[in-house]
Amino acid sequence: MIECGTVYRNNSACFTFKICPSPTSINKTTKRCNGKSENERKNGDEERISKYSFVSPLCMRGGDGYNSYSSNSLLQRRVLSKAKPVLVKNTKDLMINLNFPTYIKVADLGCSSGQNTFLAMSEIINTINVFCQQRNQNPPEIDCCLNDLPSNDFNTTFKFIQFFNGMNITSKESYFVYGVPGSFYSRLFPRRSLHFVHSSYGLHWLSKVPEGLEKNKMSVYITNSSPLSTYKAYLNQFQRDFATFLKLRSEEMVSNGRMVLTFIGRNTIDNPLHRDCCHFWTLLSKSLRDLVAEGLVSASKVDSFYLPFYDPNEKEIKEMVQKEGSFEIRDLETHGYDLGHCNQDESKRSKSGQNEANYIRAVSEPLLAAHFGDAIINILFNKFACHVSQHVSCRNKTTVSIVVSLTKKKTFLMS
Amino acid sequence: MIECGTVYRNNSACFTFKICPSPTSINKTTKRCNGKSENERKNGDEERISKYSFVSPLCMRGGDGYNSYSSNSLLQRRVLSKAKPVLVKNTKDLMINLNFPTYIKVADLGCSSGQNTFLAMSEIINTINVFCQQRNQNPPEIDCCLNDLPSNDFNTTFKFIQFFNGMNITSKESYFVYGVPGSFYSRLFPRRSLHFVHSSYGLHWLSKVPEGLEKNKMSVYITNSSPLSTYKAYLNQFQRDFATFLKLRSEEMVSNGRMVLTFIGRNTIDNPLHRDCCHFWTLLSKSLRDLVAEGLVSASKVDSFYLPFYDPNEKEIKEMVQKEGSFEIRDLETHGYDLGHCNQDESKRSKSGQNEANYIRAVSEPLLAAHFGDAIINILFNKFACHVSQHVSCRNKTTVSIVVSLTKKKTFLMS
Repeated sequence: MIECGTVYRNNSACFTFKICPSPTSINKTTKRCNGKSENERKNGDEERISKYSFVSPLCMRGGDGYNSYSSNSLLQRRVLSKAKPVLVKNTKDLMINLNFPTYIKVADLGCSSGQNTFLAMSEIINTINVFCQQRNQNPPEIDCCLNDLPSNDFNTTFKFIQFFNGMNITSKESYFVYGVPGSFYSRLFPRRSLHFVHSSYGLHWLSKVPEGLEKNKMSVYITNSSPLSTYKAYLNQFQRDFATFLKLRSEEMVSNGRMVLTFIGRNTIDNPLHRDCCHFWTLLSKSLRDLVAEGLVSASKVDSFYLPFYDPNEKEIKEMVQKEGSFEIRDLETHGYDLGHCNQDESKRSKSGQNEANYIRAVSEPLLAAHFGDAIINILFNKFACHVSQHVSCRNKTTVSIVVSLTKKKTFLMS
Repeated sequence: MIECGTVYRNNSACFTFKICPSPTSINKTTKRCNGKSENERKNGDEERISKYSFVSPLCMRGGDGYNSYSSNSLLQRRVLSKAKPVLVKNTKDLMINLNFPTYIKVADLGCSSGQNTFLAMSEIINTINVFCQQRNQNPPEIDCCLNDLPSNDFNTTFKFIQFFNGMNITSKESYFVYGVPGSFYSRLFPRRSLHFVHSSYGLHWLSKVPEGLEKNKMSVYITNSSPLSTYKAYLNQFQRDFATFLKLRSEEMVSNGRMVLTFIGRNTIDNPLHRDCCHFWTLLSKSLRDLVAEGLVSASKVDSFYLPFYDPNEKEIKEMVQKEGSFEIRDLETHGYDLGHCNQDESKRSKSGQNEANYIRAVSEPLLAAHFGDAIINILFNKFACHVSQHVSCRNKTTVSIVVSLTKKKTFLMS
């Protein structure tokens, strides 16, 4: 059994995810989108924004220090390696369908900061160049757009551009890197300008905390004991956000353009409340309740904190794509979610706990600190590490990675 | 007479300028450009880079603190207001020549960080939208590309995006902001993709310190007492850099695309060494020599420091545009260079000195600190402020602002 508070420096990846837009950008979206459903959203938005003002600091921790996202995002490599076959296949299909164009514009949405920002982009560039070589075609010039919120640490990302240049060993033509500051729940690009969109571990972050969670006591997210209304509120927010995302991208993308999206999802079908006992948010709730028991945080403070997050299952993703109607699903895959600490002996448990704590901290610290203050963060994640270490032999995880690829349907322009 | 070391907080603008590429990006340029002249440049490049490794930290001071570029760049507003008629005229001409297109891509090269980054872009957007309204045309969607070196503080710039949104009061259509990290002495955009380029106070920064300055003793730049070889070395480097810039932009721009460039220049024609007695680099050299006299800096350290800067006159700019051949000059204007402290009474001298010191510090601190160390910076700029305050009544300034607008000539594509 490890002592809480022991810090282990180890970079093997456990867990990580990414960015979500701020309430400001929600406003922007609402303003820019037309149609009844968008107008409906306007009502009460300002009130909600002020109520859930802690959503504003939702960004990954910047810089490249010990607790930064950049230093704690190695799982991203695993996730990308699982999505790689779908990414490569869709990149090639795009080139064929667009008849090997001389120019391609690619966007990575919710790229966060650090080296991993360039992983997917590099894969796409190399795939295009190798494929062009194989087919005896001239490679296109490629605009590489790295998007995240304006508060994202783009400075750290741009530090790694030379590293990116080194990765693109097959590139014989030019590629051009852009940082695109803005929420992917708002318009980011001109009409019909994008050819390929990639987004990994971004879309499970909602544009805001749903309304109507008051009955979900002392838990930051859906748990087995949550009321059904909590699930419905989260699902509803996810559906609205994902529909907005699809609609905006359909405006920005060319016909036959491709998207590859990777979500943190769940593999449950029947009971929408069911999450496994060692779900990261369940353990975070437990850790917060520990602090309440020790008098470090008030119960009401925990009761007013909810995460703007939703882990959809395959069916929920599929239904929204079909309902929104601009895209057609090409691939839909579910992968196991490897936290890297299964089958480990007891001596390795403490390390696993600390690793997962580091990753969860990297993605949630700004959000938690804005609501609870900086002072509790260290002790909170020591508790969290302890809880994780007690669950290393758990099986039957409900958390999965879901990869979906989409083709933009043909647009029939009105003359 | 002010006491050296007194700090006055005052934001009225005196003096400022901008960015230049690092040696790394020079390498990139060399690699990407073809043709004999580029190959010639390759020889000895690495040696020069290591010799002048202090050019690498040439960037404006980031953040928005007291000594940052962001807080000390109000002159930029004056400079832009003088260039505004040319900017507006060329923006309108572009819209007419391109027959009011549905999409425009605009780049601001060497944008640096802070609020001013958005000034020119905002002027262009508003001009386009008002003009479209006047001519009863639909306004285009606009890609707004803000370029600077990867080491530039893009995070601070992106903080001001909301301020930018507030400035574009006439915009009825959408515009999209991108950060473009890279040297403008390398390719930044795909072929024939840019419609309008603006660059203010960037192009007087050279890609590197010229070779052959050894005879220019104890001065960081050309002075009245410099040997003629110093002028020739600087002019030669400027010609190579400006030709590279024009060639690269001609590849990136559409036919009939426009550029508006503003330089710090000089109004002298006959004696190429002549600079007025209170030229900012002359006073910086004086301040460094003060530190040598006080034993704080070694003479050899000052002797090995030169600025990668050149202040061309109208004739030199004109000749290079004509020689390179891709662009045609539309406007060429010279404006007085108002340091904001002429005709001031003695009581205001100290303030003027401190103001100019703040601005020079904001643009040169990273460069100076990399060569001389951080420790001397405060005392150096106290000396500098003293020297400036002794020159407030000087007339016959040789420094001017030169604004040139260019049209991209028609490209005849080989089939």
